Amino acid sequence: MTLQGYFRSSAAWRVRIALNLKGLAHEHGFRHLRRGEQAMPDYLAKNPQGLVPVLEVPGQGVLAQSLAILEWLEETQPGAKLLPADPWGRARVRALAGIIACDIHPIQNLRVLQYLKRAMGQEQAAIDAFARHWITRGLTAFETRLAEAEAGAFCHGDAPGLADACLVPQLGNARRFGADLAPFPRILRVEAACAALPAFAKAAPEAQPDAE
Amino acid sequence: MTLQGYFRSSAAWRVRIALNLKGLAHEHGFRHLRRGEQAMPDYLAKNPQGLVPVLEVPGQGVLAQSLAILEWLEETQPGAKLLPADPWGRARVRALAGIIACDIHPIQNLRVLQYLKRAMGQEQAAIDAFARHWITRGLTAFETRLAEAEAGAFCHGDAPGLADACLVPQLGNARRFGADLAPFPRILRVEAACAALPAFAKAAPEAQPDAE
Repeated sequence: MTLQGYFRSSAAWRVRIALNLKGLAHEHGFRHLRRGEQAMPDYLAKNPQGLVPVLEVPGQGVLAQSLAILEWLEETQPGAKLLPADPWGRARVRALAGIIACDIHPIQNLRVLQYLKRAMGQEQAAIDAFARHWITRGLTAFETRLAEAEAGAFCHGDAPGLADACLVPQLGNARRFGADLAPFPRILRVEAACAALPAFAKAAPEAQPDAE
Repeated sequence: MTLQGYFRSSAAWRVRIALNLKGLAHEHGFRHLRRGEQAMPDYLAKNPQGLVPVLEVPGQGVLAQSLAILEWLEETQPGAKLLPADPWGRARVRALAGIIACDIHPIQNLRVLQYLKRAMGQEQAAIDAFARHWITRGLTAFETRLAEAEAGAFCHGDAPGLADACLVPQLGNARRFGADLAPFPRILRVEAACAALPAFAKAAPEAQPDAE
């Protein structure tokens, strides 16, 4: 399998974590987002959205959308489970993932911020404040949900999974935009537990070959 | 089960479609988003994100995030299947759903547009253009994927499912913002096939008791 990504893309980062948690060997391809390499014809043929990541699966084809990729890995690949066994727990983990993958990350994604600058003429300070606003709002809800009984050393129980694979990359973005994470002690505790695991450490942006 | 929603919320609309496709009896609660009823303490106790929908399940609790609710319904409830049986097809349907639920809807959601107006001082015409931009961009990719062999009368094969439940409400938003749908004949064909089904007709905003 080959993951086409970008070191700083938090959606690609999620998939790197999942591949590592499952212990799956894989290759990396790189698309430099600030140079627009995800909008080139050869990449659009893989993913008409022109977004990273995609996962190329030999003999099968190309998978797009990070959450769909994570669910496919869960359904077809051996290794650590990304979702709990009980449907109610699975729904909780997917809801936590959705807070980030639906309601934070797409709003503060590079292409939206570029639109605010180019089409709306917003200053960088206002753009950064926009990103921080949605990050802080989403993480506030996430922090509240980490007080639920199902939370443990990780987002759900005492093993890392799909929600953790979404949370950790979002915190990278949060720091890049200068968000204050001090109000989120439960989130920071989960992040520290993740950081201690090689699956997460190996997936970090600064550990990628295309890191700048 | 009780669905807490709002007639115009496309995320609530998705869940209404899924409940109808599965033939599940349910109650409706209503939160008027423009009056901020989703930010009241009794609702925040159900969902700290302050977003609709949530699904209240007697004896179990409250589920948030529309995609997580749809997956939970699929895993636990009888009736029509929202996802195909094969993992590759499931990944395709989830990716189509993600184009809308991650990469269109959250960006053009009411709260983001209100931010552009209140915090960034944007005019209504520029705000509507912002919404149309992301809708058109996402639907363009969606249209391309509807040329894939797996598409049929509906997004995936000849029965409606999770991707259709996300697509149809997004088209409601598209028209509200004045997006041109003429470049999307495959999407419009799927929409027409859905509109002919009672499960979709009953879920439409104008058919809801809180419609204005």
